[in-house]
Amino acid sequence: MTQRIAILGGGQLARMSAVAAYRLGCEVGIVARPGDDSPALRLATERFVGDWSSPALLDAVAAYADVVLLENEFIAPDILRYLEATGKCQVVPSSQTIALVQDKFFQKTALAQAGLPVPRFTAVDTPDDVLAASHRFGLPLVLKCRTNGYDGYGNELIRGTTDIAPAFEKLLRRGSPLMVEEFIPFTKELAVMAVRNQRGEEVIYPVVETIQHAHVCHTVLAPAAVSETTAANVTALARQVLEAIHGTGIFGIELFLLNDGEVLINEIAPRPHNSGHYTIEACETSQFENHIRSGLNLPLGSPRMRTPVAVMVNLLSGFEAPAQPTGLETALQVPGVTVHLYGKKASRPGRKMGHVTALGADLVETRERALRAARAIAI
Amino acid sequence: MTQRIAILGGGQLARMSAVAAYRLGCEVGIVARPGDDSPALRLATERFVGDWSSPALLDAVAAYADVVLLENEFIAPDILRYLEATGKCQVVPSSQTIALVQDKFFQKTALAQAGLPVPRFTAVDTPDDVLAASHRFGLPLVLKCRTNGYDGYGNELIRGTTDIAPAFEKLLRRGSPLMVEEFIPFTKELAVMAVRNQRGEEVIYPVVETIQHAHVCHTVLAPAAVSETTAANVTALARQVLEAIHGTGIFGIELFLLNDGEVLINEIAPRPHNSGHYTIEACETSQFENHIRSGLNLPLGSPRMRTPVAVMVNLLSGFEAPAQPTGLETALQVPGVTVHLYGKKASRPGRKMGHVTALGADLVETRERALRAARAIAI
Repeated sequence: MTQRIAILGGGQLARMSAVAAYRLGCEVGIVARPGDDSPALRLATERFVGDWSSPALLDAVAAYADVVLLENEFIAPDILRYLEATGKCQVVPSSQTIALVQDKFFQKTALAQAGLPVPRFTAVDTPDDVLAASHRFGLPLVLKCRTNGYDGYGNELIRGTTDIAPAFEKLLRRGSPLMVEEFIPFTKELAVMAVRNQRGEEVIYPVVETIQHAHVCHTVLAPAAVSETTAANVTALARQVLEAIHGTGIFGIELFLLNDGEVLINEIAPRPHNSGHYTIEACETSQFENHIRSGLNLPLGSPRMRTPVAVMVNLLSGFEAPAQPTGLETALQVPGVTVHLYGKKASRPGRKMGHVTALGADLVETRERALRAARAIAI
Repeated sequence: MTQRIAILGGGQLARMSAVAAYRLGCEVGIVARPGDDSPALRLATERFVGDWSSPALLDAVAAYADVVLLENEFIAPDILRYLEATGKCQVVPSSQTIALVQDKFFQKTALAQAGLPVPRFTAVDTPDDVLAASHRFGLPLVLKCRTNGYDGYGNELIRGTTDIAPAFEKLLRRGSPLMVEEFIPFTKELAVMAVRNQRGEEVIYPVVETIQHAHVCHTVLAPAAVSETTAANVTALARQVLEAIHGTGIFGIELFLLNDGEVLINEIAPRPHNSGHYTIEACETSQFENHIRSGLNLPLGSPRMRTPVAVMVNLLSGFEAPAQPTGLETALQVPGVTVHLYGKKASRPGRKMGHVTALGADLVETRERALRAARAIAI
């Protein structure tokens, strides 16, 4: 019988996961909220659009799906628990893993308790707690929402004690409890995808370097230009992260590389990750296919790169307007580049509208081609 | 504005073309017939299911689509002319090209008139015409339906004159006019994909060898193990074919390689082709992406192989039953292999249910892996 997968969320991660699911012969239901610009709905077999806290919607999803996957961690664990309690579908990752990972304080606590290297951190309830932390960790300091932060939203840098009150007030409005972390003067940001299925098979993708512009992932270099020791260290950490969070599914792990070669874990996302888009063209098995395989508890595929070098550059929109890509013709003429447009209806400043991936033999030359194609497209 | 593509047909060729269209930011409408087991419907943005000769259905398709593409040539040119006459959508390839290509007698006549090498052929109206042809071309002889033949359906081999009457009667029942061709004792069957967009850009993919089992494509070896002269000869022929049929779109060209190195054109299909499935993983631009690009009149992508060797093996079902793939777990463990399941609901003997593609450096070893994965799956 055809396996049916439902994905909670209708963005580009759901969309690219859906393509991988179809290739494995599955049908795909996309669960979205009314009015959302959800490009994955366009290629869904079934469309579940409604209030995610509605039992009627969740019952319909559970009745449809053999497996329920997520495209982001910003989901009330109660919703996942409800789906799990129906006994009709498998939820991957589990509500337990999501509850642990989605609160960055719980996440970091679990990692620290497992002996994994993380920046020093503490939960804060008041501006005075932040001040106390500044005495322990020094300044600058990063004040963070424990939940619902992404792409720099929900983070404030505290450079001096006078920043504390306004930053605290600003973040409090996002409705999340807060935490602080020491500021890490990293030399590079690294990332790695880690996958585990229910039978305990694990796959760790190559270590990549991510370059952010204004807190949003802009460029990914695969593999990262780091020493073999660092790469091996990060790979080992990724395996330990899978142990520490005891999770099934696919996880994007972001790390800081320090001047002295030390590596600290920054954040874990329990889903396919922007830093893994390069895997579609560059690896034997894409992160999206292994996302689906881990959900179905199928054997995981090799993460080995098929090309010496891959560079991914995001297509971020610069303005607010109905999406109207221009320059595609120019971009498509850059050799060795694949263009991915997500089909979103509306552009917004900084919104991820697509990405390009260039394959090649040399990092500098390949990056130049990826940038040339990306810059040609305005969207 | 989002480009909208409609595809006439809902099989695996439409399905894989749709995935390429989504990647370029398009929406996709799939046009299918009621009751058809059309796996492309599952990932369609819009579903047009009805009688293709109904003006209401065709009006709806024309109102929806900027571009209408085909997944097979078995379509009345009147339907395409109707769509073209609405002036609302571009039909690629045109009704004129389809009318020329879908009748194998017209197709071969056009190729012969352009001076291209084809087996000797003639139209036949009666068994006596076949007998007369046997005197001109010798025996054996191939009696063929001029239209609607595929995978060996619509072909009969005439070994002796006593075969003529029963073969003629059998094929006549398929409702197509008939033709005969001399039998070609080929040493290999070759194929090549050729693409042209409206601005006249052309792309010719590598020459591949196709191996049929019971007239159905079973294995494709890319590139074909032929001399450089033969490969160059086939590539040149492919360009001349595009000229001769004066067509826009993507074309699969099947050829016979003879003992003395001579090459004859067997057949042209005006659409993505089974012999080009390997391009998804093996080439810089897949046949499906260039199918969409040619339809949208975008610059065509490079057909260069990213890997020394690729082998595609079809997953053909052996029995009549609801589709229930088994052995996927074993197949997914074969290294360097991508499994494609089409998600068809029903198995039928010889039906194409999916395919696997193996990439590698050595033809023998890569073929062994592809076969190992394909044999693991029963569907």
